[in-house]
Amino acid sequence: MARALGRVQVETAPAKLSQALSYAILPGGARIRPTILLSVAGACGDDCPAMSDAAAAALELIHCASLVHDDLPCFDDADTRRGKPTVHRAYSEPLAVLTGDSLIMLAFEILVRAGRAEDANLRAAQLVLSLSQRSGMPGGICAGQGWESEASIDLRAYHMSKTAALFIASTEMGAISAGHDPEPWRDLGALIGEAFQVADDLRDALLDEEALGKPVGQDDLHGRPNAVATLGVKGARAHLSDILAGAIASIPSCPGEADLAKMVRRQAQAIMPKLPERYQV
Amino acid sequence: MARALGRVQVETAPAKLSQALSYAILPGGARIRPTILLSVAGACGDDCPAMSDAAAAALELIHCASLVHDDLPCFDDADTRRGKPTVHRAYSEPLAVLTGDSLIMLAFEILVRAGRAEDANLRAAQLVLSLSQRSGMPGGICAGQGWESEASIDLRAYHMSKTAALFIASTEMGAISAGHDPEPWRDLGALIGEAFQVADDLRDALLDEEALGKPVGQDDLHGRPNAVATLGVKGARAHLSDILAGAIASIPSCPGEADLAKMVRRQAQAIMPKLPERYQV
Repeated sequence: MARALGRVQVETAPAKLSQALSYAILPGGARIRPTILLSVAGACGDDCPAMSDAAAAALELIHCASLVHDDLPCFDDADTRRGKPTVHRAYSEPLAVLTGDSLIMLAFEILVRAGRAEDANLRAAQLVLSLSQRSGMPGGICAGQGWESEASIDLRAYHMSKTAALFIASTEMGAISAGHDPEPWRDLGALIGEAFQVADDLRDALLDEEALGKPVGQDDLHGRPNAVATLGVKGARAHLSDILAGAIASIPSCPGEADLAKMVRRQAQAIMPKLPERYQV
Repeated sequence: MARALGRVQVETAPAKLSQALSYAILPGGARIRPTILLSVAGACGDDCPAMSDAAAAALELIHCASLVHDDLPCFDDADTRRGKPTVHRAYSEPLAVLTGDSLIMLAFEILVRAGRAEDANLRAAQLVLSLSQRSGMPGGICAGQGWESEASIDLRAYHMSKTAALFIASTEMGAISAGHDPEPWRDLGALIGEAFQVADDLRDALLDEEALGKPVGQDDLHGRPNAVATLGVKGARAHLSDILAGAIASIPSCPGEADLAKMVRRQAQAIMPKLPERYQV
């Protein structure tokens, strides 16, 4: 990420936009997507680390770009992100729009630059394809945000594009970086994405419980169906465990299969919300 | 463009965002950049028309994306574009942000798809590099817009990135599509870009004259230096002719050199503002 940034921070560039780019990506969040990507690349032998590094950085740049645009006044109108003012609050709305746009361009630029340096243009092209598909329309994160402007939402398409798309990109791009076919890796990404979605639903429900001072039921929690509304807290927790078991089972046969399964289990523990005592069996 | 759009307009996509994408690119403006790109590709032999077609569409998609974002309330707050309401007026501000983002992703996607179909991944990767560089930071159109947030503007960098960058992309990408080295083609793009800039300055000055009812002088017209402020109307007109002559002279030796010179002359006539009688010699 720092290397990617170095490329755009030159004296001839407009200074505030340069600073806003750093501000938007450093210090990072949990960097879950690049971690998954590098783990999958490692499991596939990672014969070209410069390519998987570039892929991990590009994926995280797109994720950061989407956060900057999602925080804008016309979407979430968020004041803070990762404990500091959002980009449009710290720099201005025009600079936030341009920061998102510039990060997107930079993501694609570093992929093809790495491809050129490593004589791996085919991998670079495949990475660009995966990243653009999982980010744009009709099935990427832009589509996910777009669903929020529809009167009636196709919930499966909404979750698949808004949350799962960049997790699918993580596993696909990890495989591509190491010269493997991305297709068998899609299920793992989709299942990890689904797990994050259900974990979010659970966390929201448990926070609501705390706020309301009473357990939440199986009714509609936020005017939109979610895992807890459909299955209840214990049911959603069990569903989450099932999804994660499915994710581990979906790992294609590869040299680093066992290590990758460990990584997924570790991520799973990190996202699994702790249930209050009354839900313990 | 229509083929590119077809790819994103599927039943599983959010309908309003799908419609907004069409709305943003159809019907088009003058399509000057893709015209230049295809003319350069033609002059270089255009041995892979599917690649140059994709490049022309990708370049125009990025141009359209930049118009949609530039029209947003936080930038120009424009009500109309190409004779109809701007995307954010017709669809909403969130959908306008997403339209720009989706068009950017789509541009890169169609480049690598064409590369894959034509077994021309190297060309596709080079095209992605040119387009991302000319669109992003530190020297592309994002940088150009970024300069407008600076207290003191580096005018040369501003014009180079805001106006010239996508013209440089037109000539570079035309050459790359046909398998030629892009480097010798950069000057032509930069000079055409500069010509557009001076022609714009002239047109603005002549419109101001009409509005004020008196000729404009060599003073600063809009609080920022421009060709007319520096050279006067007749001087700027002469400068524009010089730039265009330089553009034609810069055309690298290639099979279709003569036809390309004709195209540049035709474009030049189209952009050359008609001077009122008092400026005729």
